[in-house]
Amino acid sequence: MSWENNVRKVIPYTAGEQPKGKVIKLNTNECPYAPSPMVATRIYDLAQQELNGSSSMLRKYPDMDAAKLVNAIVKVYNDRYFSGDKNTGKNTQAEAGLNFDNVFTGVGSDDVLSMAFMTFFNSDKPVLFPDITYSFYDVWADVHRIPYKVQPLTDDFSIDIKDYLDKENGGIVIPNPNAPTGVYEDPSMFEEIVRNNPDSVVIIDEAYIDFGGESCLPLIKKYDNVLVVQTFSKSRSLAGLRIGTAFGCEKLIRYLKDVKFAFNSYTLNYPSIELATVAVLDTGYFDDTVAKVIKTREWTKEKLSELGFEFRNSKANFIFAKHKKVSADEIFTKLREKDIYVRHWNKPRIDNYLRISIGTDEDMKELVKALKEIVS
Amino acid sequence: MSWENNVRKVIPYTAGEQPKGKVIKLNTNECPYAPSPMVATRIYDLAQQELNGSSSMLRKYPDMDAAKLVNAIVKVYNDRYFSGDKNTGKNTQAEAGLNFDNVFTGVGSDDVLSMAFMTFFNSDKPVLFPDITYSFYDVWADVHRIPYKVQPLTDDFSIDIKDYLDKENGGIVIPNPNAPTGVYEDPSMFEEIVRNNPDSVVIIDEAYIDFGGESCLPLIKKYDNVLVVQTFSKSRSLAGLRIGTAFGCEKLIRYLKDVKFAFNSYTLNYPSIELATVAVLDTGYFDDTVAKVIKTREWTKEKLSELGFEFRNSKANFIFAKHKKVSADEIFTKLREKDIYVRHWNKPRIDNYLRISIGTDEDMKELVKALKEIVS
Repeated sequence: MSWENNVRKVIPYTAGEQPKGKVIKLNTNECPYAPSPMVATRIYDLAQQELNGSSSMLRKYPDMDAAKLVNAIVKVYNDRYFSGDKNTGKNTQAEAGLNFDNVFTGVGSDDVLSMAFMTFFNSDKPVLFPDITYSFYDVWADVHRIPYKVQPLTDDFSIDIKDYLDKENGGIVIPNPNAPTGVYEDPSMFEEIVRNNPDSVVIIDEAYIDFGGESCLPLIKKYDNVLVVQTFSKSRSLAGLRIGTAFGCEKLIRYLKDVKFAFNSYTLNYPSIELATVAVLDTGYFDDTVAKVIKTREWTKEKLSELGFEFRNSKANFIFAKHKKVSADEIFTKLREKDIYVRHWNKPRIDNYLRISIGTDEDMKELVKALKEIVS
Repeated sequence: MSWENNVRKVIPYTAGEQPKGKVIKLNTNECPYAPSPMVATRIYDLAQQELNGSSSMLRKYPDMDAAKLVNAIVKVYNDRYFSGDKNTGKNTQAEAGLNFDNVFTGVGSDDVLSMAFMTFFNSDKPVLFPDITYSFYDVWADVHRIPYKVQPLTDDFSIDIKDYLDKENGGIVIPNPNAPTGVYEDPSMFEEIVRNNPDSVVIIDEAYIDFGGESCLPLIKKYDNVLVVQTFSKSRSLAGLRIGTAFGCEKLIRYLKDVKFAFNSYTLNYPSIELATVAVLDTGYFDDTVAKVIKTREWTKEKLSELGFEFRNSKANFIFAKHKKVSADEIFTKLREKDIYVRHWNKPRIDNYLRISIGTDEDMKELVKALKEIVS
């Protein structure tokens, strides 16, 4: 007997490498562009505020409700997702729009998702998610001791909706677009899953939705059992701040907040709240950045096809591709020798694929040049 | 049947109010002084870095090991806690000093403690902690479904060491100084508890240790079952950044990191790592700040005694006091009318006490003036 017998032993998640020095880093799906310039401006303000000791905000606990940020999100998301309906009157369930109590924030969408697993997946029945998906889902299920069952994607990496209809489960979680496949499914498919599972919470993980997909956000006004999770780490260029959000009906968000506040009341720190607020309000910069990434992605798809790569039509800021002749392992190794980092998993069904994040145009030209040398 | 049946329902922690507007805020044990001026200087650097888009660090994931910060902590803590021994050769177990693998970091000590509960308190036997203590302990035990048993403090709010010796338990957690009592116990008492419980992890929560107590840190080189937890929110004036640390033997820290990385790999954000690093390296500023708070605390004790308050000799940045004649409830309400916020709990044994954080000299003069009017 020793204290070690009582230790919760887990196998930790392995993240993509963060190499130092000058490399082309296409392995962690970060945005290749800096955040909105409003962020830098706001950082100057904070420096000024701290320099004048008596106005220091860092010495104080941050606002545990992150109200400033949540209000900014409510404003911007209402304009984007709910106002059109208001004008046309076509979509009455969306008419009410988003309010403060529909929004949850956490330290990256990992924190939000982990809290959501803990809060909503408390059944003895298995939680369902795809066999090829975000590799943290089974880790969270393990650490929170939640039973789970993976549902295999089809051969072309699509979701078979039948796997999520009329199946006994203690919850469902699916990313859209899925990761690392990049495959996007229409909100109508998710609506059917949500409607079919009134006794489960269905989590739609929209980490990559801004790169060309349509958000399931309007579903939260229509169903009380759907939670839509998003992140500031990709389309908003703020991976360094760690900010994730969840949207749901007020009751769902209340339960999530209760667990969060029982766990750690103050999680989003003061700089995160301040900087994310100005970033989310700069919708013009956001639209431009997303458009640039999409344009580069489409160019890259064309070039990869020409070089003999095969892939599903990604709507994320990455492409999940295999080559007709050369193994992923070989390409991965040779790219690394050229200081180009992409992601590769030695896992069943996907061990011959590479996940390539979309960088700048220059990054992708370098990549294409290197791939040309490797595969020809 | 509904999804609500599977929700983890908890009663959330209630934190001290964060009033807006001009008030004297002595209710959340924040430091009344700004962080080191090096912090403001570093914030300017970050603004510059983000303005020049190509050097943006915010768009990237932060270093999940927070290596820069951990290295700074190792350096400063070795100088402070272990170097004396190196020179004299008197204390061989401390000679080896602290290294990178003895240090864990998290989003405030709440995050660190919650992770530690989850990692180390996995037994069917109850975890032990005092009946009057940090009010998050029972909340974490509940949320992680850990059985616990409170051990009553003595009448004068001291710990009775017998309550923690030869008692069956699945872990022990005690703050030193204790909160909200402010009572400090000698490290020799903790050493006896640690030695007596080799099959349990003993957590010593040193959130307030810098205000005059002696840290139990050297114990981590001598015992493999002790975890010392500290925070940057009090003595380092960085509550707004949310940074906590834990110190333990390498094996203990490894287990803690495994759970953390399974949970959320990237928790300390980029600004936190950068700003906390410069703050911890500015040891001169730290010493001056702590000395100022202690001086103000001792002055306040004198004045409170003169006004008929009774309290144990606090070694924290707050005083836990009751008045001989006037009820805590009445004083609390009347102070609030004067825009002075202190903390009061309607809990058994402490409902006639107020916890008064130490503010600036000016804050405390205002407090004493107000109390004089209330109690005389």
